[in-house]
Amino acid sequence: MVENKSLILAKHPIALPIVGEDLVVKSAPFDLEQASPEGGLILKTNYVSYDPYQRGRSELSHLPFHHVRTNKPVKPNPASHSTGFVLGEPITNNALSTVVSSFNPRFKQGDVVIGNSSFSQYVLVPKARADKDTESAGFSVVSNPLGLDPKIFLGALGMPGLTAYSSFYEIGKPKKGEAIFISAASGAVGQIVGQLAKREGLVVIGSVGSEAKLEFIKETLGFDAGFNYKTEQPEQALKRLLKELGREGIDIYYDNVGGEQLDAALGALRNWGRVVCCGFISQTSKRPEDIYRLKNVQVIVGKRLNLRGFEVFDPDFGPKYSAEHQKNMQRWIKDGEIKVQMSVTEGIEQSAEGLVGMLKGENFGKAVLKIADL
Amino acid sequence: MVENKSLILAKHPIALPIVGEDLVVKSAPFDLEQASPEGGLILKTNYVSYDPYQRGRSELSHLPFHHVRTNKPVKPNPASHSTGFVLGEPITNNALSTVVSSFNPRFKQGDVVIGNSSFSQYVLVPKARADKDTESAGFSVVSNPLGLDPKIFLGALGMPGLTAYSSFYEIGKPKKGEAIFISAASGAVGQIVGQLAKREGLVVIGSVGSEAKLEFIKETLGFDAGFNYKTEQPEQALKRLLKELGREGIDIYYDNVGGEQLDAALGALRNWGRVVCCGFISQTSKRPEDIYRLKNVQVIVGKRLNLRGFEVFDPDFGPKYSAEHQKNMQRWIKDGEIKVQMSVTEGIEQSAEGLVGMLKGENFGKAVLKIADL
Repeated sequence: MVENKSLILAKHPIALPIVGEDLVVKSAPFDLEQASPEGGLILKTNYVSYDPYQRGRSELSHLPFHHVRTNKPVKPNPASHSTGFVLGEPITNNALSTVVSSFNPRFKQGDVVIGNSSFSQYVLVPKARADKDTESAGFSVVSNPLGLDPKIFLGALGMPGLTAYSSFYEIGKPKKGEAIFISAASGAVGQIVGQLAKREGLVVIGSVGSEAKLEFIKETLGFDAGFNYKTEQPEQALKRLLKELGREGIDIYYDNVGGEQLDAALGALRNWGRVVCCGFISQTSKRPEDIYRLKNVQVIVGKRLNLRGFEVFDPDFGPKYSAEHQKNMQRWIKDGEIKVQMSVTEGIEQSAEGLVGMLKGENFGKAVLKIADL
Repeated sequence: MVENKSLILAKHPIALPIVGEDLVVKSAPFDLEQASPEGGLILKTNYVSYDPYQRGRSELSHLPFHHVRTNKPVKPNPASHSTGFVLGEPITNNALSTVVSSFNPRFKQGDVVIGNSSFSQYVLVPKARADKDTESAGFSVVSNPLGLDPKIFLGALGMPGLTAYSSFYEIGKPKKGEAIFISAASGAVGQIVGQLAKREGLVVIGSVGSEAKLEFIKETLGFDAGFNYKTEQPEQALKRLLKELGREGIDIYYDNVGGEQLDAALGALRNWGRVVCCGFISQTSKRPEDIYRLKNVQVIVGKRLNLRGFEVFDPDFGPKYSAEHQKNMQRWIKDGEIKVQMSVTEGIEQSAEGLVGMLKGENFGKAVLKIADL
């Protein structure tokens, strides 16, 4: 028997989750020598992904990713691939794990696999899940022919990277010479969108939450301009930067944060502008009465804007772009054309702090939890 | 010489235009026997259209249709077909006129023509405009093979009807069995969208501003349900009606009003819902500080909504659907399958009151000004 620590959802958070109250680390014994149910797996977890949509999954009233929050129970939505976390159980997300024992012909001991798993040191996988090969419902062996750092498969080469890649092309419809504004620009999705936009010949403006991140997107990633939303009001910042760049406005807004920055972007968009509605982390941990209320929504009519939300597992996104994304991105990362910045929280004991830190924007790059060396 | 009365923009309105202050009727002599400039026309105006976007065109800071309003001068936007009204000049809009004298081979005396014209009893048209045949830039002889009431060519068969027809199909993408909610449902655009939706087998909910209009959309137009937004809060009304209809939510929101009803619709939309952003008359006459601020915008992400603004002259709309709209709609109106409700203000003397009344929602059906019998 070994010790098996997990990050447990103890209570549904109302605002930002409280460490030790809503989220607690608990230990239970785990038998590494046990016989798995026929066709199953025993996994040792190496890295788990932190993503903003986990905030929504922690709620009692969980709807697909996010919804108007009521904190009343609602029916699960069959259209969503993500379900609410269960009270008293470990929270889950995409993970990189090593096969300790395999009772399934698809895997052998020592395989490094990717798939949705628990925030636990060890996990027993039933046959039903071990048989499936989609990242959201099952597991697959990581294909890493270029020998890249495996944890990138939770970031630029995983769900966040595919999110960025598919939606930038499918909704953003970038054209050379256009201008794009990206919020949370050093984050898991933003850093990829910005670099893709530079490859496509766009002028790129990013917003971030610290001076170090600002230097990173400009110096390391090559963005044309950026601002720190914590020290400059977004509407003013966009006006100032567009003037400095000699541009009338932006053509695409890639929205990871919602709220005040979305409002400012609506004001700065040109005719026929597109808004990729990817997330709204600025609002996810707010009480309903504190939600930012937008004043610029009516410009959608006169400027003929197109705003579109999506989920990476929808047919027009992940499934449509997955092969292209994997092929291109692996090569671009290997060649140094696309840079990746990850933010690693070390150890299951720190897992709750890492999650809350990500929700507060304290991570610098794609946030992951390292549970064991790989 | 005859008297020629016109509705003049005397001042740029700040909120709702003030009759006798922002908008005044003025008279000037007009020589009906004058020789027109070569290739021009002399027109007698019969009917002029009132449309919500005229509020935006009255502003100093006019941008295409509407924009975040500042009341500071801005550069005209070359992408828009509509320009700001000129201080001291008659306001303009689509009109039905009779040719008094023609100096252009495209027209003969007595022709009934449609095109953008002045709110004036008589108008002198220069050659440059008489040569053009698009409704926005020139004139064309009304083609009325089925002998319909000519003023319908300013409504269901004109710009508002084409607006409704093109955007309902292009953005709404209706599917049989879906549910649609339409605001300003008895208005020029709403009454057409609702009847098209019934033809396509949708469940139709409308909102209106009086009990008479509510009875009209349900009894005369055959909508499945409706509410009076002046006596029932939109969020509550939608919840109540959806429950009564046994529906989980709406699939399409056709938005003519913006503000609180758009917010309520965002809350009521189902996954993959579409929002046709046609207008926001609830906000157009408000001072910037009184603009309604939306709280539900973030649902765009989780529900994967698509919100899109448009202008009827954009390639994917009017030009793409014009022939189909004209052919189908003339026949459906003749056969009584599509009903049209118009609201006529009588006489150029009442023209300002008619415009302000339309902006306040006092019209019942498509609003027009009758200047002279046809």
